[in-house]
Amino acid sequence: MDESGRRYFTFAAHGPGLELDCGSSLGPVTLAYETYGQLNTARDNALLILHAFTGDSHVASHPGLPGEAALPGWWETMVGPGKAIDTDRYYVICTNILGSCRGSTGPTSLNPATQAPYGLAFPVVTIGDMVRAQKALIDHLEISKLLAVIGGSVGGMQALQWCVSYPHRLRAAIPLATTMRHSAQAIAFNEIARQAIMADPKWNMGEYGDNPPELGLAVARMIGHVTYLSDQAMRRKFGRRLQGRQGFSFHFESDFQVESYLHHQGTKFVRRFDANSLLYLTKAADYFDLTGSDQGSLGALAGADIRFLVISFTSDWLYPTYQSREMVHALKREGLDVSFCEIEADCGHDAFLLENERLAKMVRGFLGGVAKNG
Amino acid sequence: MDESGRRYFTFAAHGPGLELDCGSSLGPVTLAYETYGQLNTARDNALLILHAFTGDSHVASHPGLPGEAALPGWWETMVGPGKAIDTDRYYVICTNILGSCRGSTGPTSLNPATQAPYGLAFPVVTIGDMVRAQKALIDHLEISKLLAVIGGSVGGMQALQWCVSYPHRLRAAIPLATTMRHSAQAIAFNEIARQAIMADPKWNMGEYGDNPPELGLAVARMIGHVTYLSDQAMRRKFGRRLQGRQGFSFHFESDFQVESYLHHQGTKFVRRFDANSLLYLTKAADYFDLTGSDQGSLGALAGADIRFLVISFTSDWLYPTYQSREMVHALKREGLDVSFCEIEADCGHDAFLLENERLAKMVRGFLGGVAKNG
Repeated sequence: MDESGRRYFTFAAHGPGLELDCGSSLGPVTLAYETYGQLNTARDNALLILHAFTGDSHVASHPGLPGEAALPGWWETMVGPGKAIDTDRYYVICTNILGSCRGSTGPTSLNPATQAPYGLAFPVVTIGDMVRAQKALIDHLEISKLLAVIGGSVGGMQALQWCVSYPHRLRAAIPLATTMRHSAQAIAFNEIARQAIMADPKWNMGEYGDNPPELGLAVARMIGHVTYLSDQAMRRKFGRRLQGRQGFSFHFESDFQVESYLHHQGTKFVRRFDANSLLYLTKAADYFDLTGSDQGSLGALAGADIRFLVISFTSDWLYPTYQSREMVHALKREGLDVSFCEIEADCGHDAFLLENERLAKMVRGFLGGVAKNG
Repeated sequence: MDESGRRYFTFAAHGPGLELDCGSSLGPVTLAYETYGQLNTARDNALLILHAFTGDSHVASHPGLPGEAALPGWWETMVGPGKAIDTDRYYVICTNILGSCRGSTGPTSLNPATQAPYGLAFPVVTIGDMVRAQKALIDHLEISKLLAVIGGSVGGMQALQWCVSYPHRLRAAIPLATTMRHSAQAIAFNEIARQAIMADPKWNMGEYGDNPPELGLAVARMIGHVTYLSDQAMRRKFGRRLQGRQGFSFHFESDFQVESYLHHQGTKFVRRFDANSLLYLTKAADYFDLTGSDQGSLGALAGADIRFLVISFTSDWLYPTYQSREMVHALKREGLDVSFCEIEADCGHDAFLLENERLAKMVRGFLGGVAKNG
């Protein structure tokens, strides 16, 4: 374990490598992951939490550990001792996704063939590939059946993909604020973000070394960020409030607080995320389609013994409720046990990451029910 | 008149220039404009049509004229002999807005002080300034009272501004798919578009001459374009259809038709629009606020003799119906005569530009009523 609380699992270091949907293979593959709580002797209390685009394995703090490991995680409100995802009761695993830059193998990793970072030589990976790598980790941890997979947004896509790829390796799934296929509008926003990165001359076909395309990446992040919020939330948070001045600047500076906020989000992101990784992860989301594509179909789950809790949020316009309903209908058509809840929240797609009593209650209750009927 | 059917009106060539909201003044000012139909002897059948961001004076074709003038205009479906805005009956004027690059004075115009294009030396203009310049044109045409001002989107903002700035110079207004103040979300998208342009090194602080920031401008346009469509329309038009290939490329090319469509929109736009102009026009929209700001208030219209037809479209998420309702309530509170209609359309903000029988019928009927009660 390193000082941020991360562990590393490396596999496919020898032999044919991890098979990928694109037809090539990849090795060695390292996954950064963190664990919380204790695996019981029956090894049947494990939850796998799947993060969104730019997340990482640090889903919650490790209170007993020093330094970075004790810092709050990205789902601190939900995961911890006594919380909805109760680490006193469950063994929680969270792993950084394949293609990311937060510890797992991705375009910033060394390409063994060249001893330089992969850059664009990294293969285009899919949500299916990410899940295939996660399954190798779960095998390594000797967990034959996960109690549940849980994830929001791109994490929710992974949760659904787990059900389709390895239906016998889990008992329940909680896809939050997600979709079973990426819509044209969502693809459009991702493509614009990619174009913003690739338009930056510093991107240099992905070969930027220590001189990343900061301006392009910041624009890409700003685009993403607006899709994670909502019209209502932005009105409430910013309205038309000016940036500490008496009146308009009549220049191309930030006049409005919402502009400074976006700049801040863009700049902050550049410090912690890799531009090529964003290209790969957005592409994986765009390729995602479980309505009967090469990647599988939720409709093929007939007879699977998996319980579902599907949750959407009223103001999420990136993956709107109608898309969750489509998912619920597809699952119910196959006779699966599905609970669905649309939670009232005005904060847009990001609602799944924010403190929400109803969300906490639903998840706690659902997991308790699954554990009891084990 | 030039071969595209445009006329030019130049004023403020001498003396103090056109006063601007920023406190400085501008001169000379040229407005490109086109007219359709005949001004009657009472000079009371004139309609002023106000265009959106990237529009121009060519609202409709001039069937009698050769060459470019005979090409379809941006509102060909609505404006022409016998159409809803009937040029057999009304004298229609459409003028390119101040700050644009389609014939009127803007950042691409020659700065008389330097004999070079203004670039960023062009003052930041407001919707109020645009309307002030238009009023000079209407004076020049010796029209003391317009029958109506009509515009969608940023054109609708100008229509509202006309009412506030010159309530005695018009009898009716038709603001379509617009708002009385730019929301935080709309400001956010405009700011991201501006950042995309300014992040392009070829932008060079606005001094790009014949070597414009094409990549940045294309990204800016793509962002705008997505906000003009709707989730539904994109699903219907593109869905997840691939770009003529058997399967995914597993490269960072266009896989989906929606991606190629956006690239096409971006590339096409770069050929006809100026990057600095886009900065200025988006800023003007962001500054727009008629809820009691420096620019005036719809609430100050009490007692004005102006009839309103306010129209919104169900799937417009850039200027959603609730914003039109706010406008209607503000006007009705002042005792004004307001008709409001939300038109069912799945094509997003752009709906106002597309053929729509209901829209045509409403506008035709409303204008007929105003003309009759003259």
